[in-house]
Amino acid sequence: MAKKGKKNYYDNVTDRIVKIIPLGGLEQIGMNITAFEYAESIIGVDCGLAFPTDEMRGIDLVVPDVTYLLENRDKVRAFFITHGHEDHIGGLPYVLKQLNVPVYAARLTAAVIETKLEEHDMLDSVRLNVMAAGDVVGVGDFKVEFIHVNHSITDAVAFAITSPAGTVIMTGDFKIDYTPLSGVPADLQRFGELGRQGVLALLADSTNALRPGFTPSEQTVAEFFDDAFRTYKDHRIMVATFASNLDRVQQIITNAAAYGRKVAVEGRSMVKIIEIAKNLGYLHVPEGVLVDMDEIPSYPAEKTCILMTGSQGEAMAALTRVSSGQHKSISITPEDVVIFSSSPIPGNEKAVYKVVNELSRSGATIVNRATHVSGHACDEELKLIYALTCPEYAVPVHGEYRHRQANAEIARSMHVEKDHVFLLNSGDVLALSKTHGEVIGSVAQGGVLVDGLGVGDVGNVVLRDRQNLSQDGIIIVAVALSADGGIVSGPELISRGFVYVRDSGNILEELKVTADHVIRESHGAKGFDRNRIKSEIREALGTYIWKTIKRNPVILPVILEVGE
Amino acid sequence: MAKKGKKNYYDNVTDRIVKIIPLGGLEQIGMNITAFEYAESIIGVDCGLAFPTDEMRGIDLVVPDVTYLLENRDKVRAFFITHGHEDHIGGLPYVLKQLNVPVYAARLTAAVIETKLEEHDMLDSVRLNVMAAGDVVGVGDFKVEFIHVNHSITDAVAFAITSPAGTVIMTGDFKIDYTPLSGVPADLQRFGELGRQGVLALLADSTNALRPGFTPSEQTVAEFFDDAFRTYKDHRIMVATFASNLDRVQQIITNAAAYGRKVAVEGRSMVKIIEIAKNLGYLHVPEGVLVDMDEIPSYPAEKTCILMTGSQGEAMAALTRVSSGQHKSISITPEDVVIFSSSPIPGNEKAVYKVVNELSRSGATIVNRATHVSGHACDEELKLIYALTCPEYAVPVHGEYRHRQANAEIARSMHVEKDHVFLLNSGDVLALSKTHGEVIGSVAQGGVLVDGLGVGDVGNVVLRDRQNLSQDGIIIVAVALSADGGIVSGPELISRGFVYVRDSGNILEELKVTADHVIRESHGAKGFDRNRIKSEIREALGTYIWKTIKRNPVILPVILEVGE
Repeated sequence: MAKKGKKNYYDNVTDRIVKIIPLGGLEQIGMNITAFEYAESIIGVDCGLAFPTDEMRGIDLVVPDVTYLLENRDKVRAFFITHGHEDHIGGLPYVLKQLNVPVYAARLTAAVIETKLEEHDMLDSVRLNVMAAGDVVGVGDFKVEFIHVNHSITDAVAFAITSPAGTVIMTGDFKIDYTPLSGVPADLQRFGELGRQGVLALLADSTNALRPGFTPSEQTVAEFFDDAFRTYKDHRIMVATFASNLDRVQQIITNAAAYGRKVAVEGRSMVKIIEIAKNLGYLHVPEGVLVDMDEIPSYPAEKTCILMTGSQGEAMAALTRVSSGQHKSISITPEDVVIFSSSPIPGNEKAVYKVVNELSRSGATIVNRATHVSGHACDEELKLIYALTCPEYAVPVHGEYRHRQANAEIARSMHVEKDHVFLLNSGDVLALSKTHGEVIGSVAQGGVLVDGLGVGDVGNVVLRDRQNLSQDGIIIVAVALSADGGIVSGPELISRGFVYVRDSGNILEELKVTADHVIRESHGAKGFDRNRIKSEIREALGTYIWKTIKRNPVILPVILEVGE
Repeated sequence: MAKKGKKNYYDNVTDRIVKIIPLGGLEQIGMNITAFEYAESIIGVDCGLAFPTDEMRGIDLVVPDVTYLLENRDKVRAFFITHGHEDHIGGLPYVLKQLNVPVYAARLTAAVIETKLEEHDMLDSVRLNVMAAGDVVGVGDFKVEFIHVNHSITDAVAFAITSPAGTVIMTGDFKIDYTPLSGVPADLQRFGELGRQGVLALLADSTNALRPGFTPSEQTVAEFFDDAFRTYKDHRIMVATFASNLDRVQQIITNAAAYGRKVAVEGRSMVKIIEIAKNLGYLHVPEGVLVDMDEIPSYPAEKTCILMTGSQGEAMAALTRVSSGQHKSISITPEDVVIFSSSPIPGNEKAVYKVVNELSRSGATIVNRATHVSGHACDEELKLIYALTCPEYAVPVHGEYRHRQANAEIARSMHVEKDHVFLLNSGDVLALSKTHGEVIGSVAQGGVLVDGLGVGDVGNVVLRDRQNLSQDGIIIVAVALSADGGIVSGPELISRGFVYVRDSGNILEELKVTADHVIRESHGAKGFDRNRIKSEIREALGTYIWKTIKRNPVILPVILEVGE
């Protein structure tokens, strides 16, 4: 570990210290991996992936950098997973390939992880342990307790992570739902009990920390759906939501069944999770309600409901293809009702509204108000968790910096001392003891880019190249030269993504003349220098293009040498 | 004009008809150009530009396609401009270059247009006429009346466009502000008067049609600013807003002055519009309040206010550069207060929040609630305009389809007959007479892409190339062949934006062997066929790359022929 230069408090004391280290290169900490370290034991909580930002052209996924864990491979005991969402489990196959330690997760979470491992052909090699809320797992110096919380997917848990340094609680993604669709409210009693015994630190979900009040119960959406299915009883209904929002899926199926509709599911991810949840008995589907998409046309439109992915305007998702008329079996009609049961995630607004506009043009009725509640706690819920646990330290996790900052302010308002609140960056090593808390250094961190089958091979140079190519295209200048630099063939100019036809003629022809001139000038008295010729070509052509049409393509000279 | 195949109502009657034709390739109609045509007269209202969507890589701007106007060049009499915002005037220089007709605009609008024309060196050649609310201009068969409305920039007007077919009102961007910062409320009396006389059609701004109620007065923001300047009296204050939101700029300057601060302005567009507005007497700046940015350090921080662009997270804007530590003279400190006086425009959320996160990390206080009111009318204001004008037909303009659809519903609720409400697409030709309204055809439409100095030369092929290049990069395979197809030099492989180093070695080396093999195979018995060799190289390399690393770069073979 690369410690900071200056000495820290712990150099002089012998406190029992737990270290908390968020890993991963994303703005949002606490969903990639959060490592907890005590003496010779390290555990990882969650192991998520992220989707690329706009600048990461051609990149499929971003997974956490686990260099620190690999360097301390002997200490790493296990991963504990809070819930089955992609941003908390998606990195597991990539990380377990390098570090095959046991994984502990609740039942549905484990089932979702299994399908991930299966895709990577790793099912047999991974030790996946199925736990339940209330269970305590001892690994190395840690005891990890599973605590039931509410979220938008079943079996979400918080962890109470106890080491000789004390108990740290990590909420995972959570909300408090007094009337959840299934199951019971978050285990507030246990949070209270732990708080009474003494909690060293609370790592709480910051996603909705900027929102005042309480997140409404999932039951409030039930009323909406009942109303919608009644109002639109003469229409086909399509509902788009997150594949992973099982509670929502349950509501839609329940309502569709109650109103005598058949339900078909479109979208691979949704089909898969529904199958898992049904098999585990977590999703209750009345006999005969679910049908295959191909069977839908054999029922009257108003007796059908299509449940689909694409509520975020994702390019390849079912609803997006329906909206652009590119879905193989579903065409939208003016009689259809499309319900968006979700809110746009920041950054997806444009894509979502594009789908809404396209669907509206068909004359279909679009419903996208009052159709969604969040799965994350608002500020009053966070205050409740602080009140129950009374932590000595607060470490806001999950959410962008502005969200974590808001969570930090809530912590202070709940009497966590100002300098006991830590806004960490990825890679920071926070050391906590009963008497002191300090960021004592930082370790390797960052996102590892996944592109096709390549993991971590795309770096900044490649991304910058792609960026440049995408702006003004590329011009290739190929020429064959004799050993003394005379032109044997060419120059030939070829371009992609570059505009070359103008009113005044073909600019490539003009550039060819320029290139030819440069090569002939380069040759001769000064001898033959590949690199000099190349840079002179780039310079001459670049200047000419900028002057004439104010563009800046990549210019790539290729010189073939023709022997003696 | 390409009429629809079938006959229309007007083929058989001799009504007086006005045609309304939105031009431009954007989702939002009514801000590019709306053409009005009666017999031998055409006028254009507004002439905006749009910014490229994500798919339009490398494109700077999108301006309207005016093919229809050029085809009817003899009929086109003038452009009338509602207000001085970029999305309503930005296309003018491009269009006037092709069609130099007079332009009519109110005072500030004309001044902003002048600076545009100056940039394009067109100031002397354009006939720009300065009008005032209440003025009526007669051109051809049209009389166009300027009617005062409220918006976020001074001198915004609606037009009452009267031809023998009747009076059509186009609101332009508007809201109704009973207590505007300067000036008077929108001229509701005149709208009522025109309504009483009979209005054929209303083209109203749909931007906020989905929002219930009334847009609050700009005065409500005044209270916020007064409060903010008092609360943060010991801090430097930075405020980011739209350069073009002159009312907001006025408020900030007024408050800063009242609290004894000096104001510096950062951002070229904002400096420019402030200068224009000040010169016209539209912006009231107390003596000595505005100072140069370089003078700011000579005042105590708490006696300064920096007004800047970048409220939308625009890449090159002042605040964005400050947030990333790349501004030449402003460094953010924990003592600073940054006010975002704007809401993110859909699509800009991610960029805005990135700036917020970066600024938050510095410890500065970020204020972005209750700091902004919209410049567009909400649904109750639209109802008021419908109630005043009682139009026979409604043509919602401005806003995405979903907004225009909401405006259409408002029109129907205000007793415009269902089939008298038209949701047009760009290029549609709507013909209206007192007895009938119908879309009778469509004309050329679409956006013209501006890339560097090129206008309209970038087409779909180029955009698709750029898209492909940006995904997985490019590999160039260069080879020199003798006349009979034997390899004289190469093949050489060069790549950009493509990842070639793997654990197992350099994939370019492997590809080189493959390419060499393909070329040698191609040669020989079958003779020498450039195109066949090229396609075989593409095929062989493409397959190999996809199989080994699941990527799909552009593969570009270049063959140089070496004589005899």
